[in-house]
Amino acid sequence: MGSLRGRDVLSAFDFNREDLFRLFDLAERLRGEISSRGILDYARGRVMVTAFFEPSTRTKISFQFAMARLGGEVVDFIEEASSIRKGETEEDTMRILDGYSPDVIVVRHSRPFFPHSVKDIVKAPIINGGDGTNEHPTQALLDVYTIWREFGRVDGICIGILGDLKYGRTAPSLSYILTRFNDVTIYYIAPRQLQVREEVLKKIEGRVRYHLVESVEEIASKLDVLYVTRLQKERFEDPQEYERLKGSYIITRNMLEKHRKIPMIMHPLPRVGEITTDVDTLPQAKYFEQAKNGMYVRAALLKEVLGV
Amino acid sequence: MGSLRGRDVLSAFDFNREDLFRLFDLAERLRGEISSRGILDYARGRVMVTAFFEPSTRTKISFQFAMARLGGEVVDFIEEASSIRKGETEEDTMRILDGYSPDVIVVRHSRPFFPHSVKDIVKAPIINGGDGTNEHPTQALLDVYTIWREFGRVDGICIGILGDLKYGRTAPSLSYILTRFNDVTIYYIAPRQLQVREEVLKKIEGRVRYHLVESVEEIASKLDVLYVTRLQKERFEDPQEYERLKGSYIITRNMLEKHRKIPMIMHPLPRVGEITTDVDTLPQAKYFEQAKNGMYVRAALLKEVLGV
Amino acid sequence: MGSLRGRDVLSAFDFNREDLFRLFDLAERLRGEISSRGILDYARGRVMVTAFFEPSTRTKISFQFAMARLGGEVVDFIEEASSIRKGETEEDTMRILDGYSPDVIVVRHSRPFFPHSVKDIVKAPIINGGDGTNEHPTQALLDVYTIWREFGRVDGICIGILGDLKYGRTAPSLSYILTRFNDVTIYYIAPRQLQVREEVLKKIEGRVRYHLVESVEEIASKLDVLYVTRLQKERFEDPQEYERLKGSYIITRNMLEKHRKIPMIMHPLPRVGEITTDVDTLPQAKYFEQAKNGMYVRAALLKEVLGV
Repeated sequence: MGSLRGRDVLSAFDFNREDLFRLFDLAERLRGEISSRGILDYARGRVMVTAFFEPSTRTKISFQFAMARLGGEVVDFIEEASSIRKGETEEDTMRILDGYSPDVIVVRHSRPFFPHSVKDIVKAPIINGGDGTNEHPTQALLDVYTIWREFGRVDGICIGILGDLKYGRTAPSLSYILTRFNDVTIYYIAPRQLQVREEVLKKIEGRVRYHLVESVEEIASKLDVLYVTRLQKERFEDPQEYERLKGSYIITRNMLEKHRKIPMIMHPLPRVGEITTDVDTLPQAKYFEQAKNGMYVRAALLKEVLGV
Repeated sequence: MGSLRGRDVLSAFDFNREDLFRLFDLAERLRGEISSRGILDYARGRVMVTAFFEPSTRTKISFQFAMARLGGEVVDFIEEASSIRKGETEEDTMRILDGYSPDVIVVRHSRPFFPHSVKDIVKAPIINGGDGTNEHPTQALLDVYTIWREFGRVDGICIGILGDLKYGRTAPSLSYILTRFNDVTIYYIAPRQLQVREEVLKKIEGRVRYHLVESVEEIASKLDVLYVTRLQKERFEDPQEYERLKGSYIITRNMLEKHRKIPMIMHPLPRVGEITTDVDTLPQAKYFEQAKNGMYVRAALLKEVLGV
Repeated sequence: MGSLRGRDVLSAFDFNREDLFRLFDLAERLRGEISSRGILDYARGRVMVTAFFEPSTRTKISFQFAMARLGGEVVDFIEEASSIRKGETEEDTMRILDGYSPDVIVVRHSRPFFPHSVKDIVKAPIINGGDGTNEHPTQALLDVYTIWREFGRVDGICIGILGDLKYGRTAPSLSYILTRFNDVTIYYIAPRQLQVREEVLKKIEGRVRYHLVESVEEIASKLDVLYVTRLQKERFEDPQEYERLKGSYIITRNMLEKHRKIPMIMHPLPRVGEITTDVDTLPQAKYFEQAKNGMYVRAALLKEVLGV
């Protein structure tokens, strides 16, 4: 049986199908153990560094919780209180952090492929916690884990991914991880100028079915999952176009009641109005559940990478 | 015997007389155990989240120390490094944090009644670490604990609370908690425009004796305790009035030597000049002792809320 | 046998020769134990506070790692999220932190002699993590530990210290600690206006040999170690003079290949261009090793100060 022991996790492609099912099962097991014992002993004596060169709530805190639940130690590198201000390069910072011999480093950076660029100068396994517009593989991991928990499978799923797909890192990683499952259909729902990047489509070509559409209405009845991401005003050259379009990309209770057939609404969070709060109490609203699942599946991932 | 197990602590009124004496006794016991063993085992396997949406030194650090001394884990949500910047609501943040199943959340917010507004969407017990101008119940808890340690009782005490009582949250919570004791007298000492709010007086009406006065001189001889808080220049419409008044609200060694009968000087800290440093070495200066007591009585509170 | 148990470490002079060799040996022993067991048990039940009133990457994180590796707890006081903003003095902050009975406090401040100024109001042992332009004793400790590991001795060493020696705290502490060894020669390499301060030279007079020079070229062949620090443009009154000089104070691979005889290049880090990255892969480039050594020798220091 395979394992991710000692491996870097830089891309959603770093998980194969077998890895994913093993992590799902492990996450379920850890959920039970954490529920009964609070803090476990798997990672006793191990140290994780969180090096977030870009702010984050859920990802960093979720990893910190996961490591704490495994019984390990966390050392948090905080950019604000650091020598970055003095002009040190992040490469030097990573080398220094690695010199303290952590067992794993979770890194986020606004620069695409930053984790890839330092993996050879860093001995500890690196987990990519988000690299600019490129990828966010553990987000994709918790996304498919959440779908798997809900439907008992990911194979055969039909998912609509909505919002700014061009600049977001959620859509690429989610697309890549979905190639590990069979018979998946993706609808990319975005205004033309914010559609998913060609490079992303090239990587999934022939491995999932996909369609580019401009509105959720036209395909809502086909969806098992509607995955909502943010549409940012500042991405539009013409503010009037934003005003014209935004209504179609805000998910409201009223809109959903017209499309009863969407069984599951997801969002990577944080949201800033693109799902109205009246949706929160609908049974298909799973985005807080999704965030919660993140802790368990990240704990599973850490346990594997640490080899404990 | 009662207990605060699993309970939210939102207001100083959430402590009844029996709770207070039980917490005082427990704080004394923990003080001894911490002194001999450093870190205890009561909260092994438990996780506390500190979610301070407004800065704080003493309250947050004091809770973190308290939890560490009990052997528990702390996960600190830091606003600066978070998605709040991206516009996420604090309600969503609280839901996400709660999703990680912490055993208790200590929350501070500049908005009055913020902890009350999220208590129903959050499963973990919430401890109010200060909500705007409204309340700061654990400050009040450590205040009465400090008085109890000094005098062996709180019943019958005569206390002067001085400073900006209108906008401060210390005076309300301290007033509320003092209603749990018998025969207490409060002198609210403030310029008329910064006197304690009507809503506060209504809640304590008939449960403590109180008087509104404008200067400490007139009642100094009656006080067991002088509790000093800050007077902020920016609260005054007329800067000249501030200049005229401020001298009466700065406690100096010289001023205290005229009023030898004040046996105890308290301050919630931080101070910014309203008690001059020459007071620090007087035997009745108890404000650093008071801050120190905070850790022990918060440890007692955590132990009870966690039910460990 | 001596020990630093319970002692403040404010100056590099606080280490005598015997202390240094004992700490070196202990650091080696801890290196082995940490390598095999990850986290040790020496500091179980002990709490270290890091109080950095000035930003830092390496020093703070290095101490946090060191304490975590010893099995102790860390409580980090973060200035940004604190009452300092409200105008509290750092002296009050230190008193409050000390009131929580930590076992050791590591403090950094931009004001020279700040740790000295609070040592009498603080019960816990204080370790100076850098006080303005004055000193950085644990940096000096790891510097000589690194030299000792490389050469098997510090006695008899010839070291060039290059850069802004007037305003830096590295050069003073390193100079002081080198007085504990025999037959040491220091070349201070700096533009005249940034040469090492008179007060520093007075303290080492007669205890090491030293020479003031303006360029590394003239003495490169004599050096065992070249210790590089930063040269800041803003220190120069005349920007043209900076432009004229800076080339001589940037260490490049090309420059080093002309001076093959320099067996060891050190830097306290962070660097901002004063050693070009093409130097990093040379065998004599030891600055990342040096940062790494910091964790082990700080762990040794903490173990001694804690008396565990």
